[in-house]
Amino acid sequence: MPAHTDHFSLRTHGKGTTEITRTISEIVSASGIRHGAVTVFVRHTSASLVIMENADPSARRDLEVFFEKLVPENTPWFIHTQEGPDDMPSHIRMALTRTSEVIPIIDGRMALGTWQGIFLFEHRRDPHQRQIAVAVVGE
Amino acid sequence: MPAHTDHFSLRTHGKGTTEITRTISEIVSASGIRHGAVTVFVRHTSASLVIMENADPSARRDLEVFFEKLVPENTPWFIHTQEGPDDMPSHIRMALTRTSEVIPIIDGRMALGTWQGIFLFEHRRDPHQRQIAVAVVGE
Amino acid sequence: MPAHTDHFSLRTHGKGTTEITRTISEIVSASGIRHGAVTVFVRHTSASLVIMENADPSARRDLEVFFEKLVPENTPWFIHTQEGPDDMPSHIRMALTRTSEVIPIIDGRMALGTWQGIFLFEHRRDPHQRQIAVAVVGE
Repeated sequence: MPAHTDHFSLRTHGKGTTEITRTISEIVSASGIRHGAVTVFVRHTSASLVIMENADPSARRDLEVFFEKLVPENTPWFIHTQEGPDDMPSHIRMALTRTSEVIPIIDGRMALGTWQGIFLFEHRRDPHQRQIAVAVVGE
Repeated sequence: MPAHTDHFSLRTHGKGTTEITRTISEIVSASGIRHGAVTVFVRHTSASLVIMENADPSARRDLEVFFEKLVPENTPWFIHTQEGPDDMPSHIRMALTRTSEVIPIIDGRMALGTWQGIFLFEHRRDPHQRQIAVAVVGE
Repeated sequence: MPAHTDHFSLRTHGKGTTEITRTISEIVSASGIRHGAVTVFVRHTSASLVIMENADPSARRDLEVFFEKLVPENTPWFIHTQEGPDDMPSHIRMALTRTSEVIPIIDGRMALGTWQGIFLFEHRRDPHQRQIAVAVVGE
């Protein structure tokens, strides 16, 4: 079967990264596809994806703080502020990271490196229900 | 039919974002592919793609201003300035956003979230004719 | 044949960009796939991909210097510093660029624009052996 699509949702706990590697891996296995690629896609503009080191959580913490400082809340010239001070920074942090990520599948497994994990990056302060769409294409 | 490719061009009006969601959606429909993924690719290094909020234009305006400030024209240490002060900032803003974006197709439609639109992000001051290549793969 | 996967490795010489367009192009040709998309994926969290101007090397030099300044080594609040001052900046510069890049294949060739090259972006000071996975999907 050359294509398999799926989707799932996940509740975040406010700002931060949540690993989703295992769920994607299970969808790849269930697809039966041995060679091809899997597309992971976040269906939101205030959350994003990043493939990041999965070993030491301090690396993700520093990444999160970097984005807090690069795109500060309460930036005085922001116009789009209806939903609060974390609204516009969320969109910009999303644009600076990724909405889609595509990982080759070789011999039935994602070709992730040893230290790579796939993370959902929540940019809003409040917990949100986030939807992720997945497409596995190949043979 | 497992693969369908297409391309189109579009004239920008200088710096800013232009929505291309409808054109991509029509290419997906025309492909007849019901499950898989569509790749959108900008064939330039001074324009890029971003999936962004499609409702309130002020969010896109703030995004554009953010990039103006993050990568200012007339940065004194730039060497690559032959084509003017907007040359090198264009390449860097492109590298910070996306050249390709991949969206899963589920039941014949792109799995975009409610507020997600696909935008071409022009980084040059002058209007340009921009080429976009599209590949739909699946079944 | 609808899917073809491959991988290769490459030794970097410390920080900087190395063009890999030709290798990817050869993998696409060898696949025999005429219409579809190729996914290029870096299996590391301290190196990344960028599609950048392939003509004037000064554009890549300015890009590299920009990232040196945007994410400086010896940032005082970094916690994740076990592997040296270039450790955490490498992860952040990777997150700001791309881990995967997907290029449509039309008539047997990647639909790259005239000035586009695919580059591996090494973020560590020391030379590293870097692995790249490639998946060609289509028909």
